[in-house]
Amino acid sequence: MNGKDKTWRLRLHEIIYESNTAAGKAFDVSLLVLIIASIVIVMLDSIERWHNLYGPLFSQLEWLFTFVFTIEYILRLISIEKPWKYVFSFLGIIDLLAIIPSYLSIIYTGGQSLLVFRALRLLRIFRIFKLTHFLSEMKFLGVAIRGSLTKISIFMTVVLTLVIILGSLMYLIEKGENGFSNIPESIYWAIVTITTVGYGDISPATPLGKFVASIIMLMGYGIIAVPTGILTNEIALQARKKEQKNEVCPGCGKEGHDVDAKHCKNCGALL
Amino acid sequence: MNGKDKTWRLRLHEIIYESNTAAGKAFDVSLLVLIIASIVIVMLDSIERWHNLYGPLFSQLEWLFTFVFTIEYILRLISIEKPWKYVFSFLGIIDLLAIIPSYLSIIYTGGQSLLVFRALRLLRIFRIFKLTHFLSEMKFLGVAIRGSLTKISIFMTVVLTLVIILGSLMYLIEKGENGFSNIPESIYWAIVTITTVGYGDISPATPLGKFVASIIMLMGYGIIAVPTGILTNEIALQARKKEQKNEVCPGCGKEGHDVDAKHCKNCGALL
Amino acid sequence: MNGKDKTWRLRLHEIIYESNTAAGKAFDVSLLVLIIASIVIVMLDSIERWHNLYGPLFSQLEWLFTFVFTIEYILRLISIEKPWKYVFSFLGIIDLLAIIPSYLSIIYTGGQSLLVFRALRLLRIFRIFKLTHFLSEMKFLGVAIRGSLTKISIFMTVVLTLVIILGSLMYLIEKGENGFSNIPESIYWAIVTITTVGYGDISPATPLGKFVASIIMLMGYGIIAVPTGILTNEIALQARKKEQKNEVCPGCGKEGHDVDAKHCKNCGALL
Amino acid sequence: MNGKDKTWRLRLHEIIYESNTAAGKAFDVSLLVLIIASIVIVMLDSIERWHNLYGPLFSQLEWLFTFVFTIEYILRLISIEKPWKYVFSFLGIIDLLAIIPSYLSIIYTGGQSLLVFRALRLLRIFRIFKLTHFLSEMKFLGVAIRGSLTKISIFMTVVLTLVIILGSLMYLIEKGENGFSNIPESIYWAIVTITTVGYGDISPATPLGKFVASIIMLMGYGIIAVPTGILTNEIALQARKKEQKNEVCPGCGKEGHDVDAKHCKNCGALL
Repeated sequence: MNGKDKTWRLRLHEIIYESNTAAGKAFDVSLLVLIIASIVIVMLDSIERWHNLYGPLFSQLEWLFTFVFTIEYILRLISIEKPWKYVFSFLGIIDLLAIIPSYLSIIYTGGQSLLVFRALRLLRIFRIFKLTHFLSEMKFLGVAIRGSLTKISIFMTVVLTLVIILGSLMYLIEKGENGFSNIPESIYWAIVTITTVGYGDISPATPLGKFVASIIMLMGYGIIAVPTGILTNEIALQARKKEQKNEVCPGCGKEGHDVDAKHCKNCGALL
Repeated sequence: MNGKDKTWRLRLHEIIYESNTAAGKAFDVSLLVLIIASIVIVMLDSIERWHNLYGPLFSQLEWLFTFVFTIEYILRLISIEKPWKYVFSFLGIIDLLAIIPSYLSIIYTGGQSLLVFRALRLLRIFRIFKLTHFLSEMKFLGVAIRGSLTKISIFMTVVLTLVIILGSLMYLIEKGENGFSNIPESIYWAIVTITTVGYGDISPATPLGKFVASIIMLMGYGIIAVPTGILTNEIALQARKKEQKNEVCPGCGKEGHDVDAKHCKNCGALL
Repeated sequence: MNGKDKTWRLRLHEIIYESNTAAGKAFDVSLLVLIIASIVIVMLDSIERWHNLYGPLFSQLEWLFTFVFTIEYILRLISIEKPWKYVFSFLGIIDLLAIIPSYLSIIYTGGQSLLVFRALRLLRIFRIFKLTHFLSEMKFLGVAIRGSLTKISIFMTVVLTLVIILGSLMYLIEKGENGFSNIPESIYWAIVTITTVGYGDISPATPLGKFVASIIMLMGYGIIAVPTGILTNEIALQARKKEQKNEVCPGCGKEGHDVDAKHCKNCGALL
Repeated sequence: MNGKDKTWRLRLHEIIYESNTAAGKAFDVSLLVLIIASIVIVMLDSIERWHNLYGPLFSQLEWLFTFVFTIEYILRLISIEKPWKYVFSFLGIIDLLAIIPSYLSIIYTGGQSLLVFRALRLLRIFRIFKLTHFLSEMKFLGVAIRGSLTKISIFMTVVLTLVIILGSLMYLIEKGENGFSNIPESIYWAIVTITTVGYGDISPATPLGKFVASIIMLMGYGIIAVPTGILTNEIALQARKKEQKNEVCPGCGKEGHDVDAKHCKNCGALL
């Protein structure tokens, strides 16, 4: 590879993967427009009336988008140092998923339904956030959510145990009637109830069932406080960490001192 | 413009735009009463039975309100230094929107439906808050909400991406039946579900659909913690800022003293 | 009034109004049992099947409860220093409301429906909390809620304005059909939606209506964070106040110093 | 009991009750698989179509699970020092409830419905948490929830009082029609509404009913802030307690040092 070729690849890399040049920004914005346009087409095509009117047009546009996204995918492969690392990265898989369904629909007609997976293209818009100051805030939220994941998992295990037991109980009470036709259905109802969604497609009809349902609802009302409490505190913790003295101890190099600290909490040196 | 005229305009400005004189307060209170009365008339007129009984009366009252609000608008224009700035301010536009629909309904009969925009008059009641000690609290909340806007926007983008993908998935699962007749309908359902509203006008009928719906509901249950966590911490931050004296101790350099502190809580030096 | 009579009244006061004697506790517990029993009777009597079976029995029991509560009311009047103050206190009015409906039902037959007001007797159980250590916690919560009342009021005003405007908008969009038959109905729907209750008795049928409804739901999802954020911070504030150094400055007598304060923040004296 | 026997029992205890040996971990994981498998069988058996197809197979598997759990129960009894303490412990009772229903169904045919209680077996999975680092987090959440129990109880009492009074009021307003057929039904409706579940099986039809319902919904919207606020602060309190070294500086007496602090952050003295 000669120097000129390298420059050409570097320039392409700059445009496609970065966004601090005018060309890079233009590329990102056009991509955003294309992604949203392709999603809108998928949506409109699913509406029968529109499909009947403009079906062939939608199909042509879809092939246009697939073509453009395929070229983009190839350019991404060419312009990066380690193509395989990109292919197996999260965004790389999403990029591939954005074009595969269309090609599959040629070979395998049942693959028609795969077209819905084109909605996954939407995940690509998170690429665009690198354009904005949103990135640091997004990382901040990400850290807070990851930090509370263990607690949230425990909470979800408790909720799942609750809905399975309460669902089984309601199946027993309503005796397999009024929509509580089996235990999985009853568990589905318990989830609908405890999360306060309350479709009303299944609802208790017996007095005892209504009594137990009332208890479940009041529990759900209290239980919703748990994830909120967990996350609120995790966000506060992260915010505090961010706020903490951005100062390194001159004695031992330790960070993370309180804002009002005068001495290093590790070695005692004056900050 | 002579001195007397200026005095007259100043006096009018005091009555209309301020509320620290008796006349100013009386003006604000009468305005509040008129706004609420006009909203009540709009509501009652929309009820068929009342419209049939008192339609002409409501119409006459509406013209009365429009007349009064028009005069008020003109007085506002006259009494202010820079009328155009007022015309294009948020409250100025609302004030104009409060009178335009009635006039439009004369020229253009289809404009009848524009009358509903008279409900926007309600936004004018926020003018009245200047009367109360609510204003500082409202500003406080406003600052907190603005401060968390970036985070809330990211959250909303994630939620929107989720409901579009999950909605498309459910359309695939329920095969366009049971109300999931197209992707936009399925996305509508996903929003109804993830926000825990749960009308029940569309609800999954297949076992797999119910399973996926359960996961969406549990996600929605956890996800609602995010905006709450964000806003709670932003409010706490604002409250802390408000509480603390923006002053450094001259003796020891310590910050973060209470608003009512006269001496440094660390070294006792006079602040 | 001689000494013996005073002793007798004091003793009665101790039993009825206080609960630090064995007799006082017994009185409170019996009252609690009576109140709950009377509420249960009201409930059962409203169920047609039970009313047909035991109607006369329920009626007799009701008169018994009314008789006992009347005697209790008279004893409360006798044993207190300032009877009129009691009569017009919140609990005094509740005590009176607990007995009036039964007597009214004799004179005025339409007063039958007044019997439902006997449910207000339930408010009397809050008297019982003086028995427990719940009282201080209840006061704590009360202070926190009162402290956030201004902010919550502003929030409620904004929500009310929103639902009136959005309700009117939906009336316009759905053209008075699909349950949106007039503006008050549409506002009712907007409240059902923004609070995430979602009965489904009224739900949008037009695509535009569903789109606007989706926006309202997502707003409701974010808006619910506001009262939670407000109250969480108010509770934290109250808890901090409670935790604060329970120390009075020896120099100036000022309270409310931080836990880590060394000098009085008011006069600078060493704490 | 000779030494060899003791060693044998100790080894069994290690496998069954602990999980720091390979055998102990294998035991716990197999138990987890068995519990989940048995729950899945209970669920599938409740679905009519599956019951008709594989009923006898499910029945045989159920007896297999019961047999294995019975042996496990006996082993638990043998390998522990104080068997009775285990029998009457929470987990001991759950373990017994996991096997009793199957045996009861032989003697007493009506006991068929008892089989649903096998869902309680799911509670046994909490045993498994000792495998993970989840245990300390679970204890943390447990302490926070217990710490806010008094406040949550008061909150629940207030909510219950509210729904009883509001339910009675709605019964009066809707005059026993539109699903508000008696007071308990109306209270059920009030709970469905105030917890924002909103099935829609009962919903107000009269204008006054809708107005009162709107107020209840808005109250529910605000009220949900209370448990969240309580729990968030309790979690924050526990987190603070956990984070802070329970140590006073020997130099200046300052408390509240970080867990990883070696020197006082105020005066620099060695902690």
